[in-house]
Amino acid sequence: MSLTVVGSIAFDSVRTPFGERERMLGGSAVHFALAASFFTEARVVGPVGDDFGEEHLAVLEARGVITDDIEHVPGGETFFWRGRYEHDMNVAHTEATELGVFGEFEPKLSDGSRQAEMLFLGNIQPELQRKVRAECTAAGFVALDSMNLWIETERDSLISVLREVDCTMLNDAEVRMLTEEPNLARAARAVRELGPAVVVSKQGEYGAALFTDAGYFALPALPLEDVQDPTGAGDTFAGGFLGYLDAQGETEDPAALRRAMAYGTVMASFNVERFGTERVAALTREEIEGRFRELLAITHFEESPIELRA
Amino acid sequence: MSLTVVGSIAFDSVRTPFGERERMLGGSAVHFALAASFFTEARVVGPVGDDFGEEHLAVLEARGVITDDIEHVPGGETFFWRGRYEHDMNVAHTEATELGVFGEFEPKLSDGSRQAEMLFLGNIQPELQRKVRAECTAAGFVALDSMNLWIETERDSLISVLREVDCTMLNDAEVRMLTEEPNLARAARAVRELGPAVVVSKQGEYGAALFTDAGYFALPALPLEDVQDPTGAGDTFAGGFLGYLDAQGETEDPAALRRAMAYGTVMASFNVERFGTERVAALTREEIEGRFRELLAITHFEESPIELRA
Repeated sequence: MSLTVVGSIAFDSVRTPFGERERMLGGSAVHFALAASFFTEARVVGPVGDDFGEEHLAVLEARGVITDDIEHVPGGETFFWRGRYEHDMNVAHTEATELGVFGEFEPKLSDGSRQAEMLFLGNIQPELQRKVRAECTAAGFVALDSMNLWIETERDSLISVLREVDCTMLNDAEVRMLTEEPNLARAARAVRELGPAVVVSKQGEYGAALFTDAGYFALPALPLEDVQDPTGAGDTFAGGFLGYLDAQGETEDPAALRRAMAYGTVMASFNVERFGTERVAALTREEIEGRFRELLAITHFEESPIELRA
Repeated sequence: MSLTVVGSIAFDSVRTPFGERERMLGGSAVHFALAASFFTEARVVGPVGDDFGEEHLAVLEARGVITDDIEHVPGGETFFWRGRYEHDMNVAHTEATELGVFGEFEPKLSDGSRQAEMLFLGNIQPELQRKVRAECTAAGFVALDSMNLWIETERDSLISVLREVDCTMLNDAEVRMLTEEPNLARAARAVRELGPAVVVSKQGEYGAALFTDAGYFALPALPLEDVQDPTGAGDTFAGGFLGYLDAQGETEDPAALRRAMAYGTVMASFNVERFGTERVAALTREEIEGRFRELLAITHFEESPIELRA
């Protein structure tokens, strides 16, 4: 199988109570592709500027990510984000956003990217998502992320692209906002009525939930004492989720979707433990397998007969 | 085994987007005892006024709750709370609190209550919790709830009573506030260092987590499309949790503690579906068993070998 992601490639300057970093490699497509690369061959589509060097490309290529469709725009600058987190790591405070080459981004897909069987539309303008989705005619499973900005300013475009995708990977606040329905179970049902058969609701440190025809499934997050930088956790989750499904060539089996949720949870847990891509880019097979088993262990319980007084 | 609860007995007037009720039977001890009554014999200790009638007592007695230590204070009025919830049902907006007989409450325990093997100290002044805990010399397992008010105004008293209990049943915001530690895993460790071997962190619609010597365990909440009134959900959770443990005569087996978390989750899920005690007071064995199995089903996943690319 094969997996294409379109999204931002960025430099992130991040300050948290646990340290700070200047101009780290980041962006939704980068975080997604690195996580997915442990499961399948991922192809990245996105623009970079003159400030994007071989050393940045090398981070992706070292993980076997196909970078042919990373488009270098001469004279331009790579998308830049500066933000900070206070002790409540669930809330990012944006201090600066410089779109750079991302402001004029028109996705150009090579045949390889266009022929992927699975596609992730990272958080970019819904109209661009729609164009890419239309180009990827071979994609049998397409997932989409978005954000409050597009829900507010491009609602109609977003709703039309939702008709063309199979899965949303929004956080729970976005699911509620998109549907104007505060109850998450109802909100997820409303999203599914807009098109996607699979709705994943990311809930940060509280875990993630899955809504499909087969019913409901939910996982807590791993309990982490060291959380240094949550930037990219959602995209890393999506990369584990879709990477696993692509590797299995499976998008309908409920048991496979549940395991995909578990791999998403596992990959996201690594992402937040260090700044930027530091932790995920350097993972070993044993670390991933170990944490998958840890997630199994911390969620396992069994029935035991009792006599209820009723 | 036997289980005593000390806490408020109240009338609650509640308005939510789904309806409103005047002067429903409520209070921490009531919600706790009703939930626990499906598992074990529960004894309620708390004061009521002249406005508390036979029909209110009957709700508890119909469930086999021992009401000998419900103290009628002549000339007094039962604790009253008026509150409302907006669409975000996680936040209660208090509109009125009238302490009534609860303002002068001095717990008086009969021999039966004093000899219980398990004790739940509902959310009352820490100094009262300490007195009751000292009286219940037979209690081998004591759990405590509290709130932001006591953490702010009675921190020293609360910390001394924590030394005398085995388990806290706080919500995650209270765990963080008590320890001044925003990371939940670290905060729970800090609470355990203050005394309690078992820390339960209630997380509302996101579920609940358990921290013990045996490690970490977490459960999501049931996905409910109908949430009418979350008042009392935390006490209902505690009633299911301790009721199950008391029925099993078990407080150390990790598998039993996990099942207790599941029964807490199940009972709380019923509580929020209707106003006040309406749903829990009328539950059947089959409903509880069915929802326990549903919780098992929505959290179950399995390992399946894969070849990671690392």
